[in-house]
Amino acid sequence: MSEKLSDAARDAMLGPLFETGWEMVDGRDAIRKTFKFDSFISAMGWMTQAAIWAEKWNHHPEWFNVYSKVDVVLTTHDVAGLSALDVKLARKMDSI
Amino acid sequence: MSEKLSDAARDAMLGPLFETGWEMVDGRDAIRKTFKFDSFISAMGWMTQAAIWAEKWNHHPEWFNVYSKVDVVLTTHDVAGLSALDVKLARKMDSI
Repeated sequence: MSEKLSDAARDAMLGPLFETGWEMVDGRDAIRKTFKFDSFISAMGWMTQAAIWAEKWNHHPEWFNVYSKVDVVLTTHDVAGLSALDVKLARKMDSI
Repeated sequence: MSEKLSDAARDAMLGPLFETGWEMVDGRDAIRKTFKFDSFISAMGWMTQAAIWAEKWNHHPEWFNVYSKVDVVLTTHDVAGLSALDVKLARKMDSI
């Protein structure tokens, strides 16, 4: 089971994500990032890889795609806020 | 090249789509529909098929996914409104 991130965990885990372009969502305990690619094919290829990781970890993004751009929002509905799973998926999305 | 739908074409082509759950987007010459599936795997599988058709026809959707739900908006940016390509992709999305 996931738990909401503690204050100490937030500093340690979210700080590095903010360095790579993630940011807090206004009014929600959630993080967001816009990923840009060189084509629709690249964007969908990336989404497909991320989707398989998401399903493997049973932790799914909210995401919006138009052409070569993907807007991602991550949060953990079960805990009504950010958990370690969001950090794990965010890192994976950055690394794909 | 695509052209904006004429009034006559709208009646003939959009009418049947409105019967399957498509509707006009408020304030835009665009159509939208929410597709619901039984799982994230099914939703992404459908998106992957639709994406390949979209790329083949060089006509791409705006779409938002969260878990088993996909919100789709179709319009043709080149003509600042609906064209026959939107109708073609909408029909394909319904049929997949």
